Amino acid sequence: MISDLHDVFSTNAKDMKKSVIRELLKLTRRPEVISFAGGLPDPAAFPVAEVAAITTDVLERDGALALQYSPTEGDPRLKEELIAHHEREDGIQLSPENILITVASQQGLDLVAKIFIDRDDPVIVGLPSYVGGLGAFRNYGARMIGVPLDDDGMRMDLLERELERLRELGRKPKFIYVVPDFQNPAGITMSEQRRLKLISLARRYDVLILEDSPYKELRFEGEPQTSIFTLDGAGQVIGLHTFSKILFPGMRLGWVIADEAIIQKLVIAKQSTDLCTPAFTQAIVAEFASRGLLSKVIENVKTIYREKRDLMLSSLDEHMPDLPGLSWTRPEGGLFLWVRLPEHMDADELFYEAIEQNVAFVIGAAFHCDGGGTNSMRLNFSYPTKEDIVEGVRRLAKVIAEHDAKLKRSPDVVISP
Amino acid sequence: MISDLHDVFSTNAKDMKKSVIRELLKLTRRPEVISFAGGLPDPAAFPVAEVAAITTDVLERDGALALQYSPTEGDPRLKEELIAHHEREDGIQLSPENILITVASQQGLDLVAKIFIDRDDPVIVGLPSYVGGLGAFRNYGARMIGVPLDDDGMRMDLLERELERLRELGRKPKFIYVVPDFQNPAGITMSEQRRLKLISLARRYDVLILEDSPYKELRFEGEPQTSIFTLDGAGQVIGLHTFSKILFPGMRLGWVIADEAIIQKLVIAKQSTDLCTPAFTQAIVAEFASRGLLSKVIENVKTIYREKRDLMLSSLDEHMPDLPGLSWTRPEGGLFLWVRLPEHMDADELFYEAIEQNVAFVIGAAFHCDGGGTNSMRLNFSYPTKEDIVEGVRRLAKVIAEHDAKLKRSPDVVISP
Repeated sequence: MISDLHDVFSTNAKDMKKSVIRELLKLTRRPEVISFAGGLPDPAAFPVAEVAAITTDVLERDGALALQYSPTEGDPRLKEELIAHHEREDGIQLSPENILITVASQQGLDLVAKIFIDRDDPVIVGLPSYVGGLGAFRNYGARMIGVPLDDDGMRMDLLERELERLRELGRKPKFIYVVPDFQNPAGITMSEQRRLKLISLARRYDVLILEDSPYKELRFEGEPQTSIFTLDGAGQVIGLHTFSKILFPGMRLGWVIADEAIIQKLVIAKQSTDLCTPAFTQAIVAEFASRGLLSKVIENVKTIYREKRDLMLSSLDEHMPDLPGLSWTRPEGGLFLWVRLPEHMDADELFYEAIEQNVAFVIGAAFHCDGGGTNSMRLNFSYPTKEDIVEGVRRLAKVIAEHDAKLKRSPDVVISP
Repeated sequence: MISDLHDVFSTNAKDMKKSVIRELLKLTRRPEVISFAGGLPDPAAFPVAEVAAITTDVLERDGALALQYSPTEGDPRLKEELIAHHEREDGIQLSPENILITVASQQGLDLVAKIFIDRDDPVIVGLPSYVGGLGAFRNYGARMIGVPLDDDGMRMDLLERELERLRELGRKPKFIYVVPDFQNPAGITMSEQRRLKLISLARRYDVLILEDSPYKELRFEGEPQTSIFTLDGAGQVIGLHTFSKILFPGMRLGWVIADEAIIQKLVIAKQSTDLCTPAFTQAIVAEFASRGLLSKVIENVKTIYREKRDLMLSSLDEHMPDLPGLSWTRPEGGLFLWVRLPEHMDADELFYEAIEQNVAFVIGAAFHCDGGGTNSMRLNFSYPTKEDIVEGVRRLAKVIAEHDAKLKRSPDVVISP
């Protein structure tokens, strides 16, 4: 081995640390722990038999192609299915040159970071934000600037203030990163007014928008929001999509939609990153979509997740102690909801007490680039069983109530008025 | 769209250009062109029916797991199969902590570049080198330093000179990149003496070795060489492996073997790059390997490629004009051979004349980080049919003979004595 390995790592790699979430998640793996910490889809919705049948058919018909290298840009047949999907869902007309197939949307985040971010470049993210987005940008040394969310999504007044502040410093963020639908972690959906304001700010300040949409199709109720990509319609927006939540994550398939010039640069970057996305999985999912099965699976997923969300919300309503400042979001879709704790509570402390009571969540600070959000937590309702949702919320409520009682007993804690 | 997109790209992305090879390959796609230009495996060797049967079994038994997220490190079952594979092939005992499963070895190249390369860091590569390696390093702004190969692999005297020159400048290369077995593009295998010398130089100059081994198992004849990883046995070597050439490329599965501390950093980098390699493809290939099918497929691939190599060599012997300086390698395995043209010939010029005669190759300059190798070309023998090998070599020989005659007629060309 060389004498000082750490010394040889790249500057960005020196900053790559073990993820706090991943380390905490290890504690949640004991079988007796009910975990709301993960972000896994419910495997009950996986169309296992259909995938087996389709794989057999694809291999019989196109085995030599399905096991061969494929174009870096992606399987043309899958692109055709995605064009039809976006026409149905968003009413937009894409061309194949607007699409790059990726190893799920995490690769989309990585490639976008790769082609745009130099070390110390500013990037605007939400407070809170998807932790995988923060990680991808951090890998290239981005300087993250957080803008808080309220119940209508990213605060546009605060975004404008940041853009103005940066302009005065002679800086321009590389992009504004948003997850506008049923955001991970907060479950918040951005209102149309905010979306339009975001586009107008992006145009005024000449900045790209990165719209990450893994959950958009999973709306249980309420009016669907038009995507920012569609509202813009002028190449200011890069859209990230994935089959991970609407179908299954095990094939790692996603896609980027963007202006042709951006897609071209992403293709060149991907060429040296992994040559191409697997032909095998692309052929299977293209066939799956062409048989019209995608919307059936999505309907099934929505039915399952709606019931689980309802159950988590009613359990929270029933069991949570009545404390000032304790509240949670009521997402109209997606996989997550967000609990805001009383201001004096620290979710990190609570985490270890929860683990002792065999229930787990992700601490809110993990989603905050500025170290904030210490009195918040993310709860996942897609993966746990219904029984576990009820019992887990009961345990969590008890932990919070006991933690509150302990804080009130403690002479060290001064609760600000 | 923003006002100046190019201006917003990262410094490295500004340097990412369309690959010359890819642009040239587009010219080779007319059906009448016999192409020795690609690097595709022969689909005749793909075990299509076995993959279909195994996929059905895997989904029936483990569908919920095979379609779910998987650990970033890789499927533990696949790792067990790889540990057994390396024990059989190389006589080494790896632990799961020495392995990271990747989206084929191109992702291995990317992740290694990501964790080691800062812009302008020196990296040592062969002249010639695998073009995907050069691309991966270039994506992170590496400064490539080329060391020529002869018929025994990288010239160790010249490597030592470069290492010494760098030391005098106070620089140290991040690693020495080699493809020691049936190298792409040249088909050359590094002798054991050179491998041992490489290790001793790497130790003396305190530099890592990156050993890329996509073809090692595809030896048709001669004595197998021990891998540099095995000869070292002390953590100085990072090994890159892939199923792309020994099984099929369509599932994009490969793996990195290295010291645990390096694997840990690669895992953190991969986490934000694509979260994990597909569970689905890993489960299928693990099952494939556990049924003992891997070695059967490899034997079949070797039989097919040996016959094709023999045919290409005998065709070259038969048809190539007798010109001073015209020679080619006689690889003992792999997918490629390398033609050295007379010194005054330019393979780039020859390429367009060859395309007119409906035969294609890759120009040697594409594999040279220093722009050299202009009088060389890479020929692939794995993908074309036997008929096409014979006819293609006949055409190529004619193109070279005619080009030579043209050069001799031309008053502009001065052939140095």
